[in-house]
Amino acid sequence: MSERAYNFSAGPAMMPAEVLEYAQEDLLDYKGTGIGVAEIGHRSDEFLAIADRAEADLRDLLAIPDNYRVLFLQGGATGQFSAIPLNLTEQTGSADYVVTGIWSKKAVDEGRKFVDKLHVAGAASEYTYVPNQNDWQLSDDPAYVHITPNETINGVAFAQTPEVEKPLVGDMSSVLLSEPFEIEKYGVIYAGAQKNIGPAGLTLVIVRDDLLEQGRPAIPAVWDWKAQAEAGSKVNTPPTVSWYMAGLVFKWLKKQGGVSGIAEVNRRKAGKLYAAIDDSELYSNPVEPECRSLMNVPFVLAKSGLEKAFLRQARSTGLVNLEGHRSVGGLRASIYNAMPEEGVDKLVDFMRAFEEASS
Amino acid sequence: MSERAYNFSAGPAMMPAEVLEYAQEDLLDYKGTGIGVAEIGHRSDEFLAIADRAEADLRDLLAIPDNYRVLFLQGGATGQFSAIPLNLTEQTGSADYVVTGIWSKKAVDEGRKFVDKLHVAGAASEYTYVPNQNDWQLSDDPAYVHITPNETINGVAFAQTPEVEKPLVGDMSSVLLSEPFEIEKYGVIYAGAQKNIGPAGLTLVIVRDDLLEQGRPAIPAVWDWKAQAEAGSKVNTPPTVSWYMAGLVFKWLKKQGGVSGIAEVNRRKAGKLYAAIDDSELYSNPVEPECRSLMNVPFVLAKSGLEKAFLRQARSTGLVNLEGHRSVGGLRASIYNAMPEEGVDKLVDFMRAFEEASS
Repeated sequence: MSERAYNFSAGPAMMPAEVLEYAQEDLLDYKGTGIGVAEIGHRSDEFLAIADRAEADLRDLLAIPDNYRVLFLQGGATGQFSAIPLNLTEQTGSADYVVTGIWSKKAVDEGRKFVDKLHVAGAASEYTYVPNQNDWQLSDDPAYVHITPNETINGVAFAQTPEVEKPLVGDMSSVLLSEPFEIEKYGVIYAGAQKNIGPAGLTLVIVRDDLLEQGRPAIPAVWDWKAQAEAGSKVNTPPTVSWYMAGLVFKWLKKQGGVSGIAEVNRRKAGKLYAAIDDSELYSNPVEPECRSLMNVPFVLAKSGLEKAFLRQARSTGLVNLEGHRSVGGLRASIYNAMPEEGVDKLVDFMRAFEEASS
Repeated sequence: MSERAYNFSAGPAMMPAEVLEYAQEDLLDYKGTGIGVAEIGHRSDEFLAIADRAEADLRDLLAIPDNYRVLFLQGGATGQFSAIPLNLTEQTGSADYVVTGIWSKKAVDEGRKFVDKLHVAGAASEYTYVPNQNDWQLSDDPAYVHITPNETINGVAFAQTPEVEKPLVGDMSSVLLSEPFEIEKYGVIYAGAQKNIGPAGLTLVIVRDDLLEQGRPAIPAVWDWKAQAEAGSKVNTPPTVSWYMAGLVFKWLKKQGGVSGIAEVNRRKAGKLYAAIDDSELYSNPVEPECRSLMNVPFVLAKSGLEKAFLRQARSTGLVNLEGHRSVGGLRASIYNAMPEEGVDKLVDFMRAFEEASS
């Protein structure tokens, strides 16, 4: 086997090697059953134990209050862009969105298909900051207020959770489990798995009980939160392998000291990387310091002609997938939970050496 | 490692051991990249090669004509129960369904949420046969006619593909790739992966080009067939691991002589099992002989008190998951492509021995 690379991909992203090694064994024979974990029926005792354990560990890690349900669904965060209005807008048919980057903009575009009165309550003029909550123009009676606490492409994060009267809905795809959040400030939290949770194909929805009662009559069954809550996320066959692997990641995370433990490492990792950027003449990050993401660090080179050389040389030292999102270009380092601190150290060393060599 | 069991589960179901062994290696390091296959970005060169290869092999295996698009989606067949009317009923708002078992009934129930005039054109009075097409009462101008060519729970299969004027839509979840089908007789074919294709979490949709033009304005993006066709099934992050493993299954199937090769084995396997049932006093299957499924063989015991002993003893000889679906009870052997003929031979031997011992 070749050495493991430091994979800075925004998602599907790096996973803990320990988790992958563990999964290898279970793939052919899960716990001596003679059946691999991908072949286990979703209503079997074995899978129910996997599912229950994963949920219990997640609840523990995030301190999810008892009046919240946890759903393990399919379709990605983009699927939930549709599902959220269908599940929440029976009564008012209006909803507020705050736009702080490309993903919250996508949530708006998809939401408009299903919400008559979708109102953009606040929008950054460029995706480098979060508009001050005092400047938001909330509508009179929105069913919910949607935010994207961390923008994966733009590297913009909310410094704190806003307080709003109506249920707050947060797309936490790239930030769930990376630092503590006050779950009870949200009505709904959702996240695609492929950053900090597990392989692509699994979507977590954490929803407060009382919000299960305001769905439309015609919600696709697989995204009907109430039906899924009642069915233990088994209205139909769930993505069993991704669910299982998410469970392994949760176990691994507990061994890292849980969310508060990993958050310390994450702050250190991000701190080192932003310092390297800010201390240099070559690299820059345009995001306002208090809104900088701990997970996704986009940066550009003062000499743009150097990008290809940067990527090529980085790759040759085992630092891969540092390309920026195709929609914005530049460079980006996603430094999720599974990225070891050594990976960031190596990246910082490489950046300094590259700058020196190119000056 | 314990010995591999013969797993008769209806899905998630048995997969070829060879495929699982191959996947084990790629899980930690895909082709020397230092990145595991679950960690590969869905727009990376590596994943694009996996995706393209899987589609090419599937097209080859099924002889899919060029004017059909192949989509690799999420949400299961149940997700498509919603997506089908949304993608196909812009114009007429009416659709015909033929009910031959529990799954086609579920398709009707879900379809009613989204089709104003959903018409049941034919329905079996009990789920043991397919109503003669001459007795179907098709409506005047349905957008499509929906059938379930193989009923996974009831073990009822269409002996031949019906000829209808309007686009035929078929839920082939448990039968795709198990025997040759004339794809061009269908407008849309769809299938959850977790029977003959790969792990749960992937859904195939094979749709004729011209049918991409009759969707509603508000289709969830992840199920918008046209958008997904244009985006190479990457409107959002696809279920990369399941897609990859499906590709391995397709390769394996080509080595088995393709669909016609495996169909021969499947006919032999099913023939042996039905013969064992029909030749016995203890076992019976209620389905009309010409409508019997080659994939899912439900049966009951004349002495129902024996079921538990049957299941327990079967399990102790390595024959597992022979329980019938929880909604109908009894017993069921799902004998998909990956079930070796020896597995069926062992089951038949066991059934004979069990009958003898219990008479």
